[in-house]
Amino acid sequence: MTASWLREQYAASKLAPRDVVAEMIRRSVADEHMNIWIAPPDAETIEPYLKRLDTMDRSAPLWGIPFAIKDNIDLANVPTTAGCPAFAYTPDAHAAVVQRLIEAGAIPLGKTNLDQFATGLVGTRSPFGETHNALKPELISGGSSSGSAVAVARGHAVFALGTDTAGSGRVPAALNGLIGLKPSLGSWPTRGVVPACRSLDCVTVFAHELEDAMRVDGVARGPDAADPWTRTIVRRSPELPKRLLLPGGDWPFFGPYASRYEAAWRQAERKAAQLGIEVQTIDYALFAEAAAVLYDGPWVAERWSALGAFIDAHPGAAFPVTERVLRSGSGDRHDAASVFSAMHRIQALKHEAAKLLEDAALLLPTAGGTWSRDEVRVDPIRTNSDMGRWTNHCNLLDLCALAVPAGEAAPDVPFGITLFAVSGGEDMLAKLAIRWADPSGKASQRSSDVSEEQPMTTFVAVCG
Amino acid sequence: MTASWLREQYAASKLAPRDVVAEMIRRSVADEHMNIWIAPPDAETIEPYLKRLDTMDRSAPLWGIPFAIKDNIDLANVPTTAGCPAFAYTPDAHAAVVQRLIEAGAIPLGKTNLDQFATGLVGTRSPFGETHNALKPELISGGSSSGSAVAVARGHAVFALGTDTAGSGRVPAALNGLIGLKPSLGSWPTRGVVPACRSLDCVTVFAHELEDAMRVDGVARGPDAADPWTRTIVRRSPELPKRLLLPGGDWPFFGPYASRYEAAWRQAERKAAQLGIEVQTIDYALFAEAAAVLYDGPWVAERWSALGAFIDAHPGAAFPVTERVLRSGSGDRHDAASVFSAMHRIQALKHEAAKLLEDAALLLPTAGGTWSRDEVRVDPIRTNSDMGRWTNHCNLLDLCALAVPAGEAAPDVPFGITLFAVSGGEDMLAKLAIRWADPSGKASQRSSDVSEEQPMTTFVAVCG
Repeated sequence: MTASWLREQYAASKLAPRDVVAEMIRRSVADEHMNIWIAPPDAETIEPYLKRLDTMDRSAPLWGIPFAIKDNIDLANVPTTAGCPAFAYTPDAHAAVVQRLIEAGAIPLGKTNLDQFATGLVGTRSPFGETHNALKPELISGGSSSGSAVAVARGHAVFALGTDTAGSGRVPAALNGLIGLKPSLGSWPTRGVVPACRSLDCVTVFAHELEDAMRVDGVARGPDAADPWTRTIVRRSPELPKRLLLPGGDWPFFGPYASRYEAAWRQAERKAAQLGIEVQTIDYALFAEAAAVLYDGPWVAERWSALGAFIDAHPGAAFPVTERVLRSGSGDRHDAASVFSAMHRIQALKHEAAKLLEDAALLLPTAGGTWSRDEVRVDPIRTNSDMGRWTNHCNLLDLCALAVPAGEAAPDVPFGITLFAVSGGEDMLAKLAIRWADPSGKASQRSSDVSEEQPMTTFVAVCG
Repeated sequence: MTASWLREQYAASKLAPRDVVAEMIRRSVADEHMNIWIAPPDAETIEPYLKRLDTMDRSAPLWGIPFAIKDNIDLANVPTTAGCPAFAYTPDAHAAVVQRLIEAGAIPLGKTNLDQFATGLVGTRSPFGETHNALKPELISGGSSSGSAVAVARGHAVFALGTDTAGSGRVPAALNGLIGLKPSLGSWPTRGVVPACRSLDCVTVFAHELEDAMRVDGVARGPDAADPWTRTIVRRSPELPKRLLLPGGDWPFFGPYASRYEAAWRQAERKAAQLGIEVQTIDYALFAEAAAVLYDGPWVAERWSALGAFIDAHPGAAFPVTERVLRSGSGDRHDAASVFSAMHRIQALKHEAAKLLEDAALLLPTAGGTWSRDEVRVDPIRTNSDMGRWTNHCNLLDLCALAVPAGEAAPDVPFGITLFAVSGGEDMLAKLAIRWADPSGKASQRSSDVSEEQPMTTFVAVCG
């Protein structure tokens, strides 16, 4: 479901927001076994948000558009659990981004499941159950924004908020066939979000359509006087990149669809060469090095600095794998000097990346494979690490990223690529994504709607 | 001596750069007992820089202007000691800033004494001897850029490069009656500078005249492709600030001139009220908290990350007090999580400071007192900490700063104030400094030259 389609229905009085919400509640109930929601859409909770639409200007950019919220982002008067019941608190106020969306007319539906404390890329590390993949339930959903991605993919919401420190807003987009926009660090406020690595955390959006993601970006973006991590990002040229950088070398694909993933990537490489943009093969080593720093280096201590006191005070409260990962950032393993050494190294890598990406975009597979939920349960650390191989570098290098669908690795196993640019390069990435979706430029920008037509028809039949 | 005066002499062919250098060598020899230089000006070393002036456009912004270089900044083919003979290395290339100055026609004279590894604010922590104050030799020079400041104050150079992590480019300016400009973090390259806290280090300039400091800034400023710490700084409005912030509360003055310093500060406060700018008293607590973090918090580990391996491998090589300070950043005292906690706190303080300084400048005493060299020798840690009380906050909060003279606390004991602005606010500070030097606006901008006339006459007599 897309916002543009909904807006047409509203304009033609074929649907009202109340009908849409009712249908979404129905869908969420039908999919209950998929462990998508922690606080599922609930008519009573949503009612005040529907009511206020009556007195609101209908031209507000997100009027009547229902959205899901990852449960590490505050929605006033609904508990924020971060995937850990013992951690739960009930905020008085919305997170800054949620507040902006509601003011723009969007309807908050509920809170979605996640890898606990947003620590994970698989979507199985939650006491609220393993989130199923939207298309193939035996596969992982990806994470940590598991429920948000699957909620959108399953039509429980038009868009959903995720967060992304290491890839949590991109991996689940790829695994469920969605757009995932991870804006530049500091461009959207993170006030009211449970910190993972506070200096790297971003709020993100999942949507079916690029246009929806960019519309949400337009509303969510901008400094927040009470958020020390927001900054004024200089928006760069919205033109296509001059060069498209692709990684050289042989990078291992993994998981039950490894060879299919590799084939899909080769296909994506061929397509990249036909976009009318100069393609350049680069040494991926600098990105790989940055990626390794995030979990192998002292940055895990940033997670511990935010959550360590809670974990220590609540033995047994955390998901076992999550606690193990978080504790790797505690006390003895990394001293203070090692943080500064790593930061100096990252500063150098960031500088190299910025030069490389001055007038270019980087194109990578979003993930180099996927896993079944069973496989992740057996080997939770290694499988999770694999999922981040192409994503972990991003925030440390201060890049923005746009995950977009790129066909299928196998039937019902979507493949995705991610486009990266330096901070402030979102508009360039959007332009590139449009070219990607329609290399010939013949179809309209909205061509991706076509695949939505079937569910939309069903929806109208049910609601109308 | 000022650059504008020298330019006039050159234009009128009353002096040539070679004469000026010869006189500076003479002066440096005469002041040898003051421990100003580590590599003093030397005719043979300087010769190539004089020669190249012959074929150079005389309109280059710093043509024929001699300058001194703190000995933690590389000058090609001259050892860089950082104040530690065992650490010395001879660089093949100039530091990026030195390179820019030479390309603009400036003449590098030699390398100046410093508190070892730029760790200190007193100017006594050096195996090359305690640098004497330019005006009262029994007093400290201030540091860590001790030799650079005193070289300028004693007329051995027109300007000098210092560095400033915690106040090293401002405290010695105040104690020797000079201008000290600490530009915004990342606005001048630090490539070719021995790191103290690499993420906070700035190269700075000492001069007698604001105009000279700003001219050097114009040459030194700008991104360097090989320096990951440079960034493009958005230059802010060059207008006077709308508000002038002064610290409320009773802050202790210290040292043998404590009461005189306090009187000089009260005088400065009265003067500030007469500049025609709204004065606002603020709670200094946020700046004091940031200042405390620099040395009491985990940032000392950043120094250790750069120098720890050398210190460990060279027992007895470091100055004893310096080693003690550096070792406080090693191993056990701070863990990695504490760095991130401190960074998160600093981020919040930085954000508060930026709001406070949105259209304002902060005015503080540069130092709240001074000490005799004897007193510092007896109690080297506490006396040093006192010197940084009004300076340590600056780089952690991402402010730029301009230290300017503000009369005398006592005969031959200069008093100085520092003006602070958010990153990119140098032009506003310069405008404010002009107003400070000449509140009525009646005298010309060059009125500060008057006090230079006496030595200049002497100089012409000697050289001409």
